[in-house]
Amino acid sequence: MKIGVIGTGAVGGYYGALLVKNGFDVHFLLRSDFAHLRDYGLLVESVNGDFVLDKVHAYGTPEDMLVCDVVIVALKTTQNNQLAAILPKITGKDGIVVVLQNGLGAEQDISDIVPSATIIGGLCFICSHKINPGHIRHLDYGSIRFGQYPKSNQPTGESRQLKTVVDIFVKAGVPVHLAENLEKARWEKLVWNMGFNGLTVILNATTDLIMKNTASRRLVRELMIEVIAGARACGYDMEDKFADIVLNATEQMSAYSPSMKLDFEAGRPLEIDSIYWRPIAAAEKHGCDMPKAKVVAWQLDFLNRLRK
Amino acid sequence: MKIGVIGTGAVGGYYGALLVKNGFDVHFLLRSDFAHLRDYGLLVESVNGDFVLDKVHAYGTPEDMLVCDVVIVALKTTQNNQLAAILPKITGKDGIVVVLQNGLGAEQDISDIVPSATIIGGLCFICSHKINPGHIRHLDYGSIRFGQYPKSNQPTGESRQLKTVVDIFVKAGVPVHLAENLEKARWEKLVWNMGFNGLTVILNATTDLIMKNTASRRLVRELMIEVIAGARACGYDMEDKFADIVLNATEQMSAYSPSMKLDFEAGRPLEIDSIYWRPIAAAEKHGCDMPKAKVVAWQLDFLNRLRK
Repeated sequence: MKIGVIGTGAVGGYYGALLVKNGFDVHFLLRSDFAHLRDYGLLVESVNGDFVLDKVHAYGTPEDMLVCDVVIVALKTTQNNQLAAILPKITGKDGIVVVLQNGLGAEQDISDIVPSATIIGGLCFICSHKINPGHIRHLDYGSIRFGQYPKSNQPTGESRQLKTVVDIFVKAGVPVHLAENLEKARWEKLVWNMGFNGLTVILNATTDLIMKNTASRRLVRELMIEVIAGARACGYDMEDKFADIVLNATEQMSAYSPSMKLDFEAGRPLEIDSIYWRPIAAAEKHGCDMPKAKVVAWQLDFLNRLRK
Repeated sequence: MKIGVIGTGAVGGYYGALLVKNGFDVHFLLRSDFAHLRDYGLLVESVNGDFVLDKVHAYGTPEDMLVCDVVIVALKTTQNNQLAAILPKITGKDGIVVVLQNGLGAEQDISDIVPSATIIGGLCFICSHKINPGHIRHLDYGSIRFGQYPKSNQPTGESRQLKTVVDIFVKAGVPVHLAENLEKARWEKLVWNMGFNGLTVILNATTDLIMKNTASRRLVRELMIEVIAGARACGYDMEDKFADIVLNATEQMSAYSPSMKLDFEAGRPLEIDSIYWRPIAAAEKHGCDMPKAKVVAWQLDFLNRLRK
């Protein structure tokens, strides 16, 4: 079984390296880091133990890449416009595409690009960074919550393909959970992401500062309540008290910079569309306005465009 | 006729100096700048011509100050907690208090402090700064829109006291307009202030940058539409198209830092309460939620408290 990994950053680099280390036949498709991976392989510094892969299969273009049985999409969603030129070339007939991305909407886009593929979404709960090309630092956590994307808007239960993907990651030592409903799981993660990601950029503050200040803590909670209402409007059962569960969990975390803040500090484009505008549009389609989230999203758009 | 001026910053310093220059008997009450004004007077650099007042009547405590016929309140609203200890001592029986402040609610508070006084509100359209103690720089504009605070919630028309105040400022060369309804006029000014003041602080941007960027321009307009809905809920007739009139007028202005941005840069407390929370509370009392303005206000509270 051939596994393809698109994107070798904090997520694709970490999980891809774990798969190689555990004996899977993994093929990495990269752009800027291609020559480095081809020549020097991958270095992972992890709380679970450091390791080096001297030699990995690296490709600079989808034309050079092999057709894979399982393709892991680990790009930032801001680069998803590349997928139409990549996925049809490297996804096998009846192949599986695993989407390890933030926010909402990627599975639907990918389903349009490779209609015969089975699409599995994965929500990564991980704290890792790419320090340099081919050099990943894994600081904490690492579990993935998987669910199958329902092509006909019906839950698909535990399909053969979902079991295949779960088996792969379990064999690689990744803590795996199953989501009964992928879209609902994405909304649950959005409660945290839409609450914190944008504010840490706009207010230039880590999560602990936002939690400590009564004004910003109130604001985060109000944003979360709005996201929960959005989820409900889209048909996913979720109660307001989930916001307090998420806030209490965040209180146990140390000072944390979410991915969007790291992207902002590194000058990378922000995932505003997948984390804010697509959920806002989904809720709006079901008659639910999200005015507070919109304010945050417009502010992020301003900051994002200002840097260009 | 004795005129008292509380606060000798960008507003009180400028208008107070104009009154002295035009022959009025003006008495300044100050705290930190007291010794400077007593010893060196006032220096005004103005687009209309610079002038120096070598000698002014300056007082360091309300106990030293004379009782005045007209008291001009030109403090930042963040200092209004001082007024209960000042106004009863220096406001003459049947005196007039002129409130040259931003936002909503000061007239009501002052009415509670000096119930027998007539209260006139003034909305200043001026671009001026205090450069140093007793040193005011007046860059542009300077008109004031006056209206009487209706004690019994009834418009009072053009009272004798309102005419007195208008006469004073007209004689001092200040362009004066009359507001038919003071509270409505305050809401009209809030359309601009709630649209721009907070965002220039949060996004660290002058008004021209916010106007140029489609995301932030959209956000400003949405905030303005919300303020207009708040005004309507409070009983003041105002149409959504007023937002576009205000935006078009802003487009004609050069790069501008509103007072809240100047306060933030100077490390002064921000007028979040009078410019955001009191209008939000007024609208809420009439059943109108202002979620977008609340987001901005919470963000400002976070930034304001962070500096303490």
